[in-house]
Amino acid sequence: MRTPIKASPNHTVQRHRAARAKPQMAAKKGLLAAVLLLSLLSSPLPSRAQASVFPVNVWPKPTSMSWAEPLAAMPVSASFRIVGTSGDSPYLVSATQRYTALLFAERYRPIVRPAVNVTAGGPALQSLTVSVSDLSAPLQDGVDESYELEILPTGVATITAATVWAAMHGLETFSQLAWRGRQGELLVATSVRVEDKPLYQHRGLMLDTGRTYFPVVDILRTIDTMAANKMNVFHWHITDSQSFPIELPSEPMLAEMGAYGEDMRYTVKDVKRIVEFAMSRGVRVVPEIDAPGHTASWAGAYPEAVSCAGKFWLPDASDWGTRLAAEPGSGQLNPLEPKTYEVVANIIDDITSMFPEGFYHAGADEVTPGCWETDPSIQADMEKGGTLSQLLERYVRAVHRHVVSKNRTVVFWEDVLLDVEVNVSASVIPPATTILQTWNNGANNTKLIVQAGYRAIVSSASFYYLDCGHGDFVGNNSVYDDQRSDYKTDGGSWCGPFKTWQRVYDYDVAYGLTAEEAKLVIGGEVALWTEQADATVLDARIWPRASAMAEALWSGNRDASGRKRYAEATDRLTDWRHRMVGRGIRAEPIQPLWCRTRPGMCDLVR
Amino acid sequence: MRTPIKASPNHTVQRHRAARAKPQMAAKKGLLAAVLLLSLLSSPLPSRAQASVFPVNVWPKPTSMSWAEPLAAMPVSASFRIVGTSGDSPYLVSATQRYTALLFAERYRPIVRPAVNVTAGGPALQSLTVSVSDLSAPLQDGVDESYELEILPTGVATITAATVWAAMHGLETFSQLAWRGRQGELLVATSVRVEDKPLYQHRGLMLDTGRTYFPVVDILRTIDTMAANKMNVFHWHITDSQSFPIELPSEPMLAEMGAYGEDMRYTVKDVKRIVEFAMSRGVRVVPEIDAPGHTASWAGAYPEAVSCAGKFWLPDASDWGTRLAAEPGSGQLNPLEPKTYEVVANIIDDITSMFPEGFYHAGADEVTPGCWETDPSIQADMEKGGTLSQLLERYVRAVHRHVVSKNRTVVFWEDVLLDVEVNVSASVIPPATTILQTWNNGANNTKLIVQAGYRAIVSSASFYYLDCGHGDFVGNNSVYDDQRSDYKTDGGSWCGPFKTWQRVYDYDVAYGLTAEEAKLVIGGEVALWTEQADATVLDARIWPRASAMAEALWSGNRDASGRKRYAEATDRLTDWRHRMVGRGIRAEPIQPLWCRTRPGMCDLVR
Repeated sequence: MRTPIKASPNHTVQRHRAARAKPQMAAKKGLLAAVLLLSLLSSPLPSRAQASVFPVNVWPKPTSMSWAEPLAAMPVSASFRIVGTSGDSPYLVSATQRYTALLFAERYRPIVRPAVNVTAGGPALQSLTVSVSDLSAPLQDGVDESYELEILPTGVATITAATVWAAMHGLETFSQLAWRGRQGELLVATSVRVEDKPLYQHRGLMLDTGRTYFPVVDILRTIDTMAANKMNVFHWHITDSQSFPIELPSEPMLAEMGAYGEDMRYTVKDVKRIVEFAMSRGVRVVPEIDAPGHTASWAGAYPEAVSCAGKFWLPDASDWGTRLAAEPGSGQLNPLEPKTYEVVANIIDDITSMFPEGFYHAGADEVTPGCWETDPSIQADMEKGGTLSQLLERYVRAVHRHVVSKNRTVVFWEDVLLDVEVNVSASVIPPATTILQTWNNGANNTKLIVQAGYRAIVSSASFYYLDCGHGDFVGNNSVYDDQRSDYKTDGGSWCGPFKTWQRVYDYDVAYGLTAEEAKLVIGGEVALWTEQADATVLDARIWPRASAMAEALWSGNRDASGRKRYAEATDRLTDWRHRMVGRGIRAEPIQPLWCRTRPGMCDLVR
Repeated sequence: MRTPIKASPNHTVQRHRAARAKPQMAAKKGLLAAVLLLSLLSSPLPSRAQASVFPVNVWPKPTSMSWAEPLAAMPVSASFRIVGTSGDSPYLVSATQRYTALLFAERYRPIVRPAVNVTAGGPALQSLTVSVSDLSAPLQDGVDESYELEILPTGVATITAATVWAAMHGLETFSQLAWRGRQGELLVATSVRVEDKPLYQHRGLMLDTGRTYFPVVDILRTIDTMAANKMNVFHWHITDSQSFPIELPSEPMLAEMGAYGEDMRYTVKDVKRIVEFAMSRGVRVVPEIDAPGHTASWAGAYPEAVSCAGKFWLPDASDWGTRLAAEPGSGQLNPLEPKTYEVVANIIDDITSMFPEGFYHAGADEVTPGCWETDPSIQADMEKGGTLSQLLERYVRAVHRHVVSKNRTVVFWEDVLLDVEVNVSASVIPPATTILQTWNNGANNTKLIVQAGYRAIVSSASFYYLDCGHGDFVGNNSVYDDQRSDYKTDGGSWCGPFKTWQRVYDYDVAYGLTAEEAKLVIGGEVALWTEQADATVLDARIWPRASAMAEALWSGNRDASGRKRYAEATDRLTDWRHRMVGRGIRAEPIQPLWCRTRPGMCDLVR
């Protein structure tokens, strides 16, 4: 009876649920060797002993934080106040009020009770004084986010910040240094000094509301949580082929015909609310209206401007080259059609008036030849010698000009430059006014972009796509009908596997770049495409994985000795996730509770 | 600038987000061929035309359902009542009350408004009469779950059921044939006839409350949703090495010392509540106390009975053979220690008195040689010529005898028989009183189990493990620190990739068996191990993927012509998920809304 099992080629793979603890055991032959090699490369591995994990931590880890020994905490006075000393800023005032309320409302009890001294009858924290050097610095790319925080045992604390937005980071850091004691009393760490500023100026999250509509409250909650993670850019992928959910004053028909329904549209008032809320959290909102591809939803209002609209997206499943779209459904703006430019101009005018943000994301990913090639007008143009790249160039030139005329920097997906089939010449998109967002080929494409002189936003699908690894949504697909047990593929997810928090955390967005090239990487964005995500799972898809990127881009993923700090980050992220859950965010757990209470015992290498 | 991309070996893999629509495009070389082959095998692919998707459906799809043309619906009278005609059964009475309440409380509006006739001023549904043949048949393995439902245009409906438990299925089916009309009026399909019974008698869900504690309300909600999916077995994996959360009258120290905390224990009252609630839903609760492996949590109470407790689980990461446990933490009952048998006997006595269920799951998976080999008493025994298999046999014999003496059928994980290192001879576990649950090697091990004469419960990790594909929880693991973009592994999840609903749906639990062998497969269980799941993500991890198994085991995954019905199942599952969300279950979405409103347009093959 044993023989058949012994004979099974993969029984060592399949036999042990234990193998869950050793990814390399479960992976295909040879990976074990690769893993050991990796271990050697990064050896000696970080050990708990070396890692300085305070009993109470801040996420993302500050650039520099000291907590005097012996570690101590003091109660927070019931009359505690946060005082702004440097004149008036409505955003600062609301922030101080918000954090005062949070401080007393939050009931955070650390999983492991902090071993710190609380001097009975000693001083209580009376006030936090916030001073800002430049109260008027607007929230924009590159704004100074540096701050210092000091909590003195005498019962006073101070935040000294470069800007209002930096001060908000200081307030968040302060809030994370407070917790509830055994009797529920509010305590805060004392003799703490933090000097902090981000490594990268662009720390974003992209949310796709075109494939799935998200209620405004879910977007606000997400932005609020971004701020708590010191992320500062909400990249709002507003529209896509599936729906056009934003009501535009100059183009009301787009939402009228393109939204999923009357109750699934963002009104001008909604947008104002989202932008204002984000601003109050120090988060910029970068709007994206994706075009010329991904525009099937425009066809209801302007059929004449959209090529191949309504056609089945994949005429021949065995010939990927003949597809009409990247995925269902089909539809791509026709650059030969005057209406296209009229509509796009109106959109740009409306969006730039609704969003104060200095970046305008024009999309332009995944232009699909098959769609344009079905269009008679385009066929005629090609017969006259025209090319699809010329078509795209005509469109991109017009869009770039118009957006720049609104004093905005244009962001495009990398495709406009790097797509091998349809692309534009660099002259059409001058680096001075253009930023490219990369999602393919990991570090390779980042390098191509910066070598071409462009600033880069890194969203590598292999590291930062939060939707990957949940399979695929396309129907009538026989690929899953496979009774083999040794099923080791991407599971139907083109960008599988699932990007674990460790994978996100360990990624170096400037990997393989020279110091000069690295300067052009302004940061990164995790992205949530929403074919298979809606409000029911929003929090868990994003958190705490986005937190992993937030720290990597804020203070890096290495310790003082240059070693990746994934080992010590585990407990800190568990604690931060625990705090986020307490704040009402349904973030995923990353370890059993057993692990956090037994430091090191859940490690692979001790 | 193009050249480097062209040169990139995997740019076709990476270039298109589009590829998300074609798993085979993204998978490794050669799979495309495999997929096309699969397509051929199952060709002609099911087409929407062939599939009979009613405008309102029932999940799982009934064995037989007719809805007379032209499709019609009638309003439900405000005085509508469900009447039991066959004497008294407290469970039936509460079920009729529950479903009457649900009918009026539910606000289900189909995504696509059903195109059916509602005769204005016509008759309204006045009553549903439920008659049960055998009111006293207890809820147990193999109980008759067959029922018939008829809804007549005259305004009366009837359920004829074999048992109370079958009647509950009929009531659920009835509830799914009701929806809200344009003005919110309650409508129900008329001229409908359903004849229904399950293909498999065991349709279960396993939840691990040992690694993560789940509040009682979350367990109740899960059981309630199981019932709505006509699943009938809640396999409660109560304890594991991480915690012992159940309070046992005869062994109070186990929870006292082994639970995560005072507020993370299931009291006798909690258990009674869960068992009663499940019974009222027609769901059996099969308790599992996993031993002799996975018992580190017992060591707090009985250190003398647990080998290798408290030791680091993996002394040498490069030598898997020397591990002390399947995963952190270590601890295995010592079969040479008298205390072991005293404690286990008390546990069996308590559990069988707390759970009326006829199955007792004794666990016994993943016994790890390395742990026992560290124990001096076991070392001494081995020096005298003893073997680890003899040790296990001694333990299993005692447990099997005691459980059978309580008139229970013993369920073990397949390991006791099929583990290649430590196992018992079949004589110790007679097939008449033993069922084996398989999780390794897919169909291969199912065949080994039934060929050995055992009844099998199928929980293949390659198809039915709901936790897989979310990475791994073990810390200090350098495997994720890999900057390559062509990262095509299991992503740190030993049993990756994520098991999509399609993968679950398409699995045939009797694959490769003869008709005779197949009779020994009593059903299947999807399993949620909880290293990385807690209440925040419980619903999304389970639903709607468990629904996919529920249908496959209830009425199968093939249409009348024998073709897999994954194509037409997509819209139905989307609708069912929509209804579950309305009932308060945070189930995952499987497609963008765009797809459901455009039948066939999101398919891979039309």
